[in-house]
Amino acid sequence: MKFTDRLHEKTLPIWRQNHNHPFVKGIGDGTVNQDNFRFYMVQDYLYLIDYSKVFAIGAVKADDVETMGKFAGLLEGTLNTEMALHRKYAERFGISEEELENAKPSPIVLAYTHYMLHVSQKGTLAEVVAAVLPCAWSYWEIGKELNDIPGAADHPLYGDWIRMYSSEAFGELASWCIDLMNEVAEGKPEHELQKLEEIFLNTTRFEYMFWDMANNKQMWPGAETADVGI
Amino acid sequence: MKFTDRLHEKTLPIWRQNHNHPFVKGIGDGTVNQDNFRFYMVQDYLYLIDYSKVFAIGAVKADDVETMGKFAGLLEGTLNTEMALHRKYAERFGISEEELENAKPSPIVLAYTHYMLHVSQKGTLAEVVAAVLPCAWSYWEIGKELNDIPGAADHPLYGDWIRMYSSEAFGELASWCIDLMNEVAEGKPEHELQKLEEIFLNTTRFEYMFWDMANNKQMWPGAETADVGI
Amino acid sequence: MKFTDRLHEKTLPIWRQNHNHPFVKGIGDGTVNQDNFRFYMVQDYLYLIDYSKVFAIGAVKADDVETMGKFAGLLEGTLNTEMALHRKYAERFGISEEELENAKPSPIVLAYTHYMLHVSQKGTLAEVVAAVLPCAWSYWEIGKELNDIPGAADHPLYGDWIRMYSSEAFGELASWCIDLMNEVAEGKPEHELQKLEEIFLNTTRFEYMFWDMANNKQMWPGAETADVGI
Amino acid sequence: MKFTDRLHEKTLPIWRQNHNHPFVKGIGDGTVNQDNFRFYMVQDYLYLIDYSKVFAIGAVKADDVETMGKFAGLLEGTLNTEMALHRKYAERFGISEEELENAKPSPIVLAYTHYMLHVSQKGTLAEVVAAVLPCAWSYWEIGKELNDIPGAADHPLYGDWIRMYSSEAFGELASWCIDLMNEVAEGKPEHELQKLEEIFLNTTRFEYMFWDMANNKQMWPGAETADVGI
Repeated sequence: MKFTDRLHEKTLPIWRQNHNHPFVKGIGDGTVNQDNFRFYMVQDYLYLIDYSKVFAIGAVKADDVETMGKFAGLLEGTLNTEMALHRKYAERFGISEEELENAKPSPIVLAYTHYMLHVSQKGTLAEVVAAVLPCAWSYWEIGKELNDIPGAADHPLYGDWIRMYSSEAFGELASWCIDLMNEVAEGKPEHELQKLEEIFLNTTRFEYMFWDMANNKQMWPGAETADVGI
Repeated sequence: MKFTDRLHEKTLPIWRQNHNHPFVKGIGDGTVNQDNFRFYMVQDYLYLIDYSKVFAIGAVKADDVETMGKFAGLLEGTLNTEMALHRKYAERFGISEEELENAKPSPIVLAYTHYMLHVSQKGTLAEVVAAVLPCAWSYWEIGKELNDIPGAADHPLYGDWIRMYSSEAFGELASWCIDLMNEVAEGKPEHELQKLEEIFLNTTRFEYMFWDMANNKQMWPGAETADVGI
Repeated sequence: MKFTDRLHEKTLPIWRQNHNHPFVKGIGDGTVNQDNFRFYMVQDYLYLIDYSKVFAIGAVKADDVETMGKFAGLLEGTLNTEMALHRKYAERFGISEEELENAKPSPIVLAYTHYMLHVSQKGTLAEVVAAVLPCAWSYWEIGKELNDIPGAADHPLYGDWIRMYSSEAFGELASWCIDLMNEVAEGKPEHELQKLEEIFLNTTRFEYMFWDMANNKQMWPGAETADVGI
Repeated sequence: MKFTDRLHEKTLPIWRQNHNHPFVKGIGDGTVNQDNFRFYMVQDYLYLIDYSKVFAIGAVKADDVETMGKFAGLLEGTLNTEMALHRKYAERFGISEEELENAKPSPIVLAYTHYMLHVSQKGTLAEVVAAVLPCAWSYWEIGKELNDIPGAADHPLYGDWIRMYSSEAFGELASWCIDLMNEVAEGKPEHELQKLEEIFLNTTRFEYMFWDMANNKQMWPGAETADVGI
């Protein structure tokens, strides 16, 4: 049994709940609230900045030039191509570059990204991969599932999102992550595999909280939202 | 104006809300739900493990032997003395060492600790101090405020908590952190001070979320709580 | 006075000695021992792997998407383009890919790279730039100086080296590093600037030791060179 | 076969050369040049500061409270007790606290410490232990060997050094490191054990270079020693 099969099987209940989240469903049938999607896009942009930093940490942790080069490509592609696409897509929702640059991360974005960042800095390459894998893998699966819904990929606003994450290019990234996970887990003792499972489980859970956050436009509770001029 | 005065002033609305949180009030008047307090103690124990790791990072980031020695003392004292006290105090709530060791962090604990850990690893000594300061400082203030309530420090269950955080020893730790913050912020350009403000603001906000978490025994939402055997 | 002018002025005696090193002179007049150059190429290849990791750390430490993207571009370009050129150039000296992959770093390479790597992980973006700057800057200056020697750039073996480091493309990288150094040093208090000076001084010194190492094919002293099968 | 036996066996030729180094022999028979020993003491003081930082990284990388507490104890003991002893011992050689504080590390000290620091930050707990082990282990062995020389431990200047490193307390530290190495290497795949071997080998080699450095009062070559006012 491949290690990623073990991961998938163990987290299946959460995995399914992520795919069935109202926000995800709403992208698929076009009913997602546009204002919530707007909030999602801004927060996702901030998320991507730190997600790409985890790729940079992957390049530091990798031992061979080939894996380093692959992480370097992901980092470069994310920062210099993908984020430009994001900015362009955001424009269609009336989100200016200035708004993106001045936006503040929600607590869930801070939580999720800093969990990945610290786990990666502290850990091995295997831990870096376990941390980033749920995002890449589940977005690909979600992309493909939504793309199977007749007409979904042609939606004037959300179709682009579906086409991006069901695309072959994105699938290659996800597949590479899956293969690398299996490669670096190879031969590790059981207690280290369990640590990898825990990381994978936690970022899978953070994926769910991210959808929830989008659906509720959730920032800090109470007076934390007060504009304290920082 | 001292930099810590500036920090205090800017975050005052949140600061006051932390001190007035029902959970904090409940420790002071003895009405806090014992089951919630039990949950709090277990999560606080897990929090302390990672909080002490931030002291270790402080020792790495410090440039002089004296500051390194101080962080080393805090780290050693936390791990080898404070945590034993915690275990003993926990026993009075029927929490065994085994339960503490097998407990899993709540999402808020993961969020708060990993925010501090990454910010500290990435940043300067000033950023380490800005990250740990709200916890030390606000616990000291809360300890003193609650200690002023007649009889509060004599409560059979929560009195110990109040005496610990209003103690001179704890006050010295908090004061040292405050002084160090001012020392390391000295002469920094304004844009770096604003970065410190943001870190201080965020960990102050996480303090509030920590109290909320305790009050709601808040773990992962939905199926994330499913026992997936990890 | 620009901060990089201050750096240049302070380290001038060492800077000049680097440029006048017999190994450097030998590249310029074609008299460098081919066996020593071969040794240099292998060690430089290993150096580049870790040098590029410092670019990855730069992407982690940077606060804005533009600077992150630039470091990402350098990392990606080094790993996926420059190193392929290095492998091709190495072939002309009879160095196979296999030899490059199995080569072990000399103590000076370990010293120089791990100094940069730790200083960068521990420090700010300014410290990352101070660490990598002497290599980029001095290679560009050396490239241009040697390119001014009539016929040097046409040498059948060493001409390529001279053309690479005197090229416009390499000059742009060096200039970007210089500009970034000035930008990030802006407004820092004097004691932090002195720390940057010290880092710049140390990697400038390691540059000299690198040339010396090449000239002496210097590995570990005494029995350290013994083949212990590791 | 214990993993540490494997390490010891593989590096034996270098290990013996370290123990037979003229500087080490000179401590044992009292003939070491006092000026060289003075140089050694100052550089060893600077080395210890960074060596203790590796203990702090050990506390960050450790997964259980007990191991964290042990590293914390080593860190605290080194900074707040051992270094005071070092300062007192240094005084007997006419080395003032001020001289210690203003001293600059030699290139070998920078190389050795930054190798350990980066390897530890990048690696697992096992890699932290492999990095620090040769210093602790070989000093203990050298201490005991020299202590067996009649009269050596009574030498008015060098006797203290011999008594310190042959002491039971130091032996306990070394034994703990050895036991921890075996514990954390348990069950790791062969390619990871080889990585640990390489780290152990490299810091063993740096030990030899450290003795060489002491014997030659070796600072930077050429103009690098020029007083550039930094």
